[in-house]
Formats: sequence, structure tokens, C-alpha cells
Amino acid sequence: MAEIESLVHLAEQFGRLSGIGRKSAMRMAYSLLDFSDEEAAEFARAIVEAKTNIHFCPICQNLTDRDVCYVYNDLDRDRSVICVVEDARAVLSLEKVREYRGLYHVLHGVISPVNGITPDKLKIKELISRLDESVQEVIVATNPTVEGEATAMYLSRLIKPLGVKVTRLAYGIPVGADLEYADEVTLFRALEGRRDF
Amino acid sequence: MAEIESLVHLAEQFGRLSGIGRKSAMRMAYSLLDFSDEEAAEFARAIVEAKTNIHFCPICQNLTDRDVCYVYNDLDRDRSVICVVEDARAVLSLEKVREYRGLYHVLHGVISPVNGITPDKLKIKELISRLDESVQEVIVATNPTVEGEATAMYLSRLIKPLGVKVTRLAYGIPVGADLEYADEVTLFRALEGRRDF
Repeated sequence: MAEIESLVHLAEQFGRLSGIGRKSAMRMAYSLLDFSDEEAAEFARAIVEAKTNIHFCPICQNLTDRDVCYVYNDLDRDRSVICVVEDARAVLSLEKVREYRGLYHVLHGVISPVNGITPDKLKIKELISRLDESVQEVIVATNPTVEGEATAMYLSRLIKPLGVKVTRLAYGIPVGADLEYADEVTLFRALEGRRDF
Repeated sequence: MAEIESLVHLAEQFGRLSGIGRKSAMRMAYSLLDFSDEEAAEFARAIVEAKTNIHFCPICQNLTDRDVCYVYNDLDRDRSVICVVEDARAVLSLEKVREYRGLYHVLHGVISPVNGITPDKLKIKELISRLDESVQEVIVATNPTVEGEATAMYLSRLIKPLGVKVTRLAYGIPVGADLEYADEVTLFRALEGRRDF
């Protein structure tokens, strides 16, 4: 079937999506052939429309289809706290908790010199420019990976001297998980961060 | 982020692909936003082009972007054997083996009354019309599922009376697999189909 050029070409497009391997991409291309012509046209239109309508909020760098994003636009939010995340997906996850009422700042990546991602490639300059006297705390919510940690450390060193409190999300055993299955680093962090009853 | 309509709409399109759940679809929609405008336009174009160019081969019902599919077009193939498969993906898998030199017939599904798929919804009529005196064997290569088995049985009852030999792919332990991990049905079939050295 390698002979069907437009099928291979379509699979290549699916394969460009992050986390999609060659086999999955081919499966998706086949699956798309089961769509009606109208459904396929709708899919194609949705791609172009999403790219056209969605851009970064000029303040939070969050994704939005308006002038500024809905979080920043919400006048009920606590403007003294900014939660820094790696990507817009993290905003979605945190918003689901319905607990956090502050603002966000999306870095669009983490520092990773090996991959050529230096601090100037991230939205760090934009974050610093938001830190006026109204901001009292920056919560660094990058992922607990090596790069996420390094980025958190970098931000903390940059922001603390400006007189703004910098905090990090707590590490520990995920709720509902069994101690037996927690990795050692998580357990170590859970012990380290233990709290009084 | 539920507020970004075009993102949700795009995720819905990905979610229509078979085997893609809501979370994966959303992840893909986000990932697509990382594409450049040109890449996104290329993706959209690839979808429309694949749908426009690819159709069923009028003989094999295999997918093709030509008048008849490349297998049927290949004059070196053995025209006395037809291998019946559920979908075009199976043709691709079998072609990879480079062992089979006969023709194919794609049913585009299996009989499944529960899902409203009766024999007339499949390309069975088209298969029967191909069975002239030149065809000596029909290999039924539907999947070893309940529906695949039922379809194989149905085809065998339909075709045998026409004087054409009907065979089924062998069942057994997959090469490289450990007996310990084979399920009982597979083991039973492997014993049943045992061969002399």
C-alpha cells in the first residue's frame, strides 16, 4: 500500500503530532478515509481555523482566541499571585481543580541546553515584566523533571532578588496511590515535605 | 480552557478517529497548535487530498488512487487465488510478508448483527461475482475474533457450493512467543492444527 501516495502523505502529517509514532499515524490516516467527504472537509477546516483563531495572550502567554485570555480577563481573579507553568495544558489541569484563583504565566517550554532551549527561548522576559508591586507571589509549577527543576531554580534565583515570594508545588505521594508503588525520589520528597497533623 | 471554541472543535475532529479517546484528542489538538501556519495548511490539504484521491478498487475493493489497485494491476500475481480480508490495513500487513502472490478482496468489515452489519453491508456480492472458473482457492483471512470467525463460516458456506476451495489462515502460537503466555483458545487451536515434522 506504500503505493498510495496521498495516504502516506496524510500519515506523515499525523506523525508530526507530538507522541504519535509511525504505526499510529498510519492507523489514523486509514481511519480518516472512513470519514464522509463533508466530515473530512470539516476536519481540514478545523485545523486551519484553530491555527488562525488561537494565539498567545499578550500578558499570560496562555492560549486564547480573544484579545487577552479568559483567566486574565476575569476580574474576580487574585492578581497578586502568578502561577508559572510549562505549557497551556497545565493551565487546563490546574483550572480543573477550581481551587487556584490567581493568574497564570505560560513559559512555553523548560530550560534544556541539550536541546538548545536556553532561557531566552522561553517567555521569561515577559514574566519578569509582569512583576510590579501588585504581584506578591510567584508559584513555580513546572513539572518535577530534571529540566522542570532546573527551570524552577533558575526562575527562583531571578525573581527572589526582586522582592517577590517564590514558591514551588508540593511533592509527595499522589492521593489514592500505594506507598509500595511510589518511586524512591517521590518517597524522599514526601518525607522531606512532611507536615504536622 | 474549555473557552477556546476552535481548540475544542479541533479536538472533536481528532476524537472521531477510531481508537482516539478524549484526552489523546485534546493532546493532539494542542500539539497541532505548535505547527507553523504552513504546516497546518499542509495537514489540512493532505486530509482533503487523501479523501479526494483515494477510492475503492472496483474489483478488489482495496484502497487505491488509480483506476484499479496496484495488486490487481500487477500481471505477475497469481489470479487463481483470492485472499479475503476485513480491511485494507490487512492487505498492507500481508504484503509485508512478501510471500503471498495471489489477489485480495477487501470486505470492509465483518458480519456483526449486534452492530447492524448484515452480509449485504459488506463487499460479499462483489466477491462472489469474481469467482469465475479462473479462481481455484479463496483464503479467508478475517481476524480470529467471534465476528471474524462467523464471517469466515458464512463465506465458506456460500463459496464451497460453487466448487471453489475455501481455506482459513492457520492458528497457533505466535513465533517468538512463550507457551506460558498463550491463552487457552490459542493453545487449543495450536494443538488442533499440529503438523508432522
